[in-house]
Amino acid sequence: MSIIMHDLAGADPALRFSPYCWRTRFALAHKGLPVETIPWRFTDKAAIAFSGQERVPVIRDDAAVVSDSWAIAEHLEDHYPMPALFGGATGRAHARFVNAWADAVMIGGIARLIVRDIIDVIDVKDRDYFRQSREARFGMTLEAVQEDGRKTRVGTFRESLLPVRLVLRRQAWLGGAAPSYADFIVAGTLMWPRCSSRFAVLADDDPITEWFSRVRDLYGGLGRTAMMP
Amino acid sequence: MSIIMHDLAGADPALRFSPYCWRTRFALAHKGLPVETIPWRFTDKAAIAFSGQERVPVIRDDAAVVSDSWAIAEHLEDHYPMPALFGGATGRAHARFVNAWADAVMIGGIARLIVRDIIDVIDVKDRDYFRQSREARFGMTLEAVQEDGRKTRVGTFRESLLPVRLVLRRQAWLGGAAPSYADFIVAGTLMWPRCSSRFAVLADDDPITEWFSRVRDLYGGLGRTAMMP
Repeated sequence: MSIIMHDLAGADPALRFSPYCWRTRFALAHKGLPVETIPWRFTDKAAIAFSGQERVPVIRDDAAVVSDSWAIAEHLEDHYPMPALFGGATGRAHARFVNAWADAVMIGGIARLIVRDIIDVIDVKDRDYFRQSREARFGMTLEAVQEDGRKTRVGTFRESLLPVRLVLRRQAWLGGAAPSYADFIVAGTLMWPRCSSRFAVLADDDPITEWFSRVRDLYGGLGRTAMMP
Repeated sequence: MSIIMHDLAGADPALRFSPYCWRTRFALAHKGLPVETIPWRFTDKAAIAFSGQERVPVIRDDAAVVSDSWAIAEHLEDHYPMPALFGGATGRAHARFVNAWADAVMIGGIARLIVRDIIDVIDVKDRDYFRQSREARFGMTLEAVQEDGRKTRVGTFRESLLPVRLVLRRQAWLGGAAPSYADFIVAGTLMWPRCSSRFAVLADDDPITEWFSRVRDLYGGLGRTAMMP
């Protein structure tokens, strides 16, 4: 039986743009596990109430219900060990650092560059919720956040990715000779701006751009064929 | 036969403060390998010319000469597999990300808080070299760098460590249930301000402070008993 996954969708149900759901999509594809995704919108809290919380990704795998992309990666590794996402306990512990870094640095950095554009791709019923919750977080309009971000923060954001660049100078993937969950964390996060905005968060000649392209080619082009706005 | 290690020293040869040499010291101790350290000063280029480059750490392990803390960690793991530093190929690949992050974020952040203080602990013969090379890098006097750093950058530096804090919320060590080379990268880097300055780069109530204290207690208190200025 397929794993069922609640996956954040836009007004067009084929548009999938959550950085956390993309981490899970890549992880499932890496394991070769069939998945049936159910489009979910920010205001569909009731549809995932069975998970005991209000965010996606949520997966249902037989009797197990797991939410949170990190917990899902651990669940998959524990129940379907090969091909490995983490390569053992220490690899898993170290991947948690990459996950924390992506959450602390990439998510906030990217949000300031694309948060207004997201309004244009999400479902009409989600717009008030999205604007109000995000404007409360930033303390200004989404238009002001994004305009300021693109004017003053693009360089800082790109510089903040230096650790990824330094690693890719030495190895083909963040996972070493082959992709690991570390690749899916960073590439999954980059799928978010790719699938919700036309703004280029990376420079064309950034080595990260070349690596990200290779990640999108994996698993039959899962990332390459994803709908873009 | 002991491994020989050239280790950056201050005017007092017992004062050892290089962030890269500390990564190596912890790695050697973790492996239980005896080491004979040779105090080295910035201007002792001739003493390590045999290594084909001009920086420490440099180790001599039987016939092998290895420089660069990352290359040394790999050499140790390949030649003395247990206790493990990386826990396999993926753990090693992921540790490279932690290493790149520490180099890109921690080193520059800490330098701006303590670089003037270093002048007071290094050997007299190193002072001109250190001041000239670092002032060229920063484009201002060391006094100006440090004064500005302590006035305007302490908060930003501490915030930049958020990924470490997020990981330590979930696990006792960066390596998971036990210390790994990821712990030695970050703690080794923190030994640098500890052993060259009296400035507190971390807040007392930072969870990183508690973890760093635990790292210093490892291996008979290797980090705890290190000379401080």
